[in-house]
Amino acid sequence: MPLKNDLVLRTIRKEKTERTPVWLMRQAGRILPEYRAVRNSLSGFKELVETPELAAEVTIQPVDILGTDAAIIFSDILVIPEAMGLKYEMIEKKGPRFPETVKTVSDLKKLRVAGAEEIQYTIDAIKITKKELDGRVPIIGFAGAPWTIFAYMVEGSGSKTFSKARAMLYTNPELSHQLLGMITESTIHYLKGQVAAGADLVQVFDSWAGILSPMQYEEFSLPYISQVCDAIQEVPKTVFAKDAYFARKSLGRLDCQTIGLDWCMDIKESRKLVGDKVVQGNLDPCALYGTFDEITAQVKQMLNAFGPYNHIANLGHGVYPDIDPLKVKHFVNVVKEYSAGMR
Amino acid sequence: MPLKNDLVLRTIRKEKTERTPVWLMRQAGRILPEYRAVRNSLSGFKELVETPELAAEVTIQPVDILGTDAAIIFSDILVIPEAMGLKYEMIEKKGPRFPETVKTVSDLKKLRVAGAEEIQYTIDAIKITKKELDGRVPIIGFAGAPWTIFAYMVEGSGSKTFSKARAMLYTNPELSHQLLGMITESTIHYLKGQVAAGADLVQVFDSWAGILSPMQYEEFSLPYISQVCDAIQEVPKTVFAKDAYFARKSLGRLDCQTIGLDWCMDIKESRKLVGDKVVQGNLDPCALYGTFDEITAQVKQMLNAFGPYNHIANLGHGVYPDIDPLKVKHFVNVVKEYSAGMR
Repeated sequence: MPLKNDLVLRTIRKEKTERTPVWLMRQAGRILPEYRAVRNSLSGFKELVETPELAAEVTIQPVDILGTDAAIIFSDILVIPEAMGLKYEMIEKKGPRFPETVKTVSDLKKLRVAGAEEIQYTIDAIKITKKELDGRVPIIGFAGAPWTIFAYMVEGSGSKTFSKARAMLYTNPELSHQLLGMITESTIHYLKGQVAAGADLVQVFDSWAGILSPMQYEEFSLPYISQVCDAIQEVPKTVFAKDAYFARKSLGRLDCQTIGLDWCMDIKESRKLVGDKVVQGNLDPCALYGTFDEITAQVKQMLNAFGPYNHIANLGHGVYPDIDPLKVKHFVNVVKEYSAGMR
Repeated sequence: MPLKNDLVLRTIRKEKTERTPVWLMRQAGRILPEYRAVRNSLSGFKELVETPELAAEVTIQPVDILGTDAAIIFSDILVIPEAMGLKYEMIEKKGPRFPETVKTVSDLKKLRVAGAEEIQYTIDAIKITKKELDGRVPIIGFAGAPWTIFAYMVEGSGSKTFSKARAMLYTNPELSHQLLGMITESTIHYLKGQVAAGADLVQVFDSWAGILSPMQYEEFSLPYISQVCDAIQEVPKTVFAKDAYFARKSLGRLDCQTIGLDWCMDIKESRKLVGDKVVQGNLDPCALYGTFDEITAQVKQMLNAFGPYNHIANLGHGVYPDIDPLKVKHFVNVVKEYSAGMR
């Protein structure tokens, strides 16, 4: 069915749109009481990810409640390691934990390249979302960048330094490249499955991009993101490499349409570095702790810096869970109204 | 007494030295079995910080064992909040925790500007170190940058996002500036005390610089670092603002002699941005997990990028606690030998 609101897609095609489109990373989640009601009826986060009807329900909530111009499927980047054979637990208030990690070639041999059908719950969630949204807004599919997934599979949990994962790049580059290759292949299968199920565009999240040196980023992250981008030709692609300021020029050369910016990245400088890509972002998530008037001022300043076209408004990272949903809605509304006036 | 090895100071004066000087952030600490022997005889980390004879002993260990060109006094940046009236605990394997934090003006009113005499243990540790080193190498004094100290005092612990601390900048900029002012004044007293006790140079660590947007960094961090730099005219100053790539030009305008670089910062680009300052850094701490040969190659590559002069070799962040001390010693030796050959 044709999309009723295709503003995100027209912006990505660099059309002269009537206003700037807006959505938020982590818009489907803990900020909304409606989400918490669903979540609290279940045993945990993973049950929600793995129950397609409910994942679809929380995916659509922000479209209804906040008025965003896109829905992003509710899931988790760590479904890929799990499908490859590395189970994880999501520990309340602490984050993910892998009881087993990849340390040696024999650990690697226990893993397999995953097919999309091994993450059927998210594929099904996209199908249900597609049907229930009935073309109201596009659906964003997503996956972690291979380096970020690698970081969790080797480290075993979140970390300030990911020193185990980064150590492996120095101590066993061959094993590192093998694992990155398997993750990349799995990710391509998974994203293709998401597109086949109805995702209108996809985003690759390189959440731990910023802890690699520029040289290591060029060797261990960019080539694999590039493979993913090259493989997905069916829909537009966004790459968000958090904190990888040093790689903006290289990111601009990827076969993707949009580059996400975090809030530390200067807007004008980034536009210059990424070339003719559309850019997405980048309000500091903390700005939404401010008053309504302060948020208005911050959003206007951001929109003025980006200019009216080739920009998808978003935060510079996921929305923080304790932000007042009315403030989030205000962010969305100010983007809509002020950007319309910029034409 | 005159210094026998004043290579660090001559480099800072931009003299044509016979080789590149080298030391490591966190060189006095868990990497050395000799440190752990001292540490394990005590109740905890804070007891070591607060026992001048033992703090001096572990300060001197890396000079003896690793052959570094400077000693950095063993202490903690959080002695400042404690001296201002905000006690903290150091929880094994977790990091610092403040039972009370600053949330309101009335919390602020309970605090005071600290004098150096309230951190007498570190002042005394410097005096003992000075005497025992007998001029072998210079002593580096240090403090946290006001923003980084503020971040802990408001957040109450380490954090991936420091969202409470950053929220306060948006919700109560006035209170934020008041607290930052008090921290700055305390820091100046403390650094002056360290210099009077014998510190030959000082370093300001802005460990959480990189989570502020460029605009907020200009408002809430740089002016206070600038006040600290302006107030300390007795000895050379180094400013290390981790991850604040966007602020390198501004850092280059501070009244300090040396700018520290982390491992994500491109060396040539950073040299251009910080102007005529001496630069310090910046090998990826994870590189020391590699083999001896790999470390040799990495160090040579780094030294070639920095060039022979106006550079103090270091890592791009503190040395990780599980690095083999022989690898650290190898890092030091390769810097010494290879840089001598670059003349």
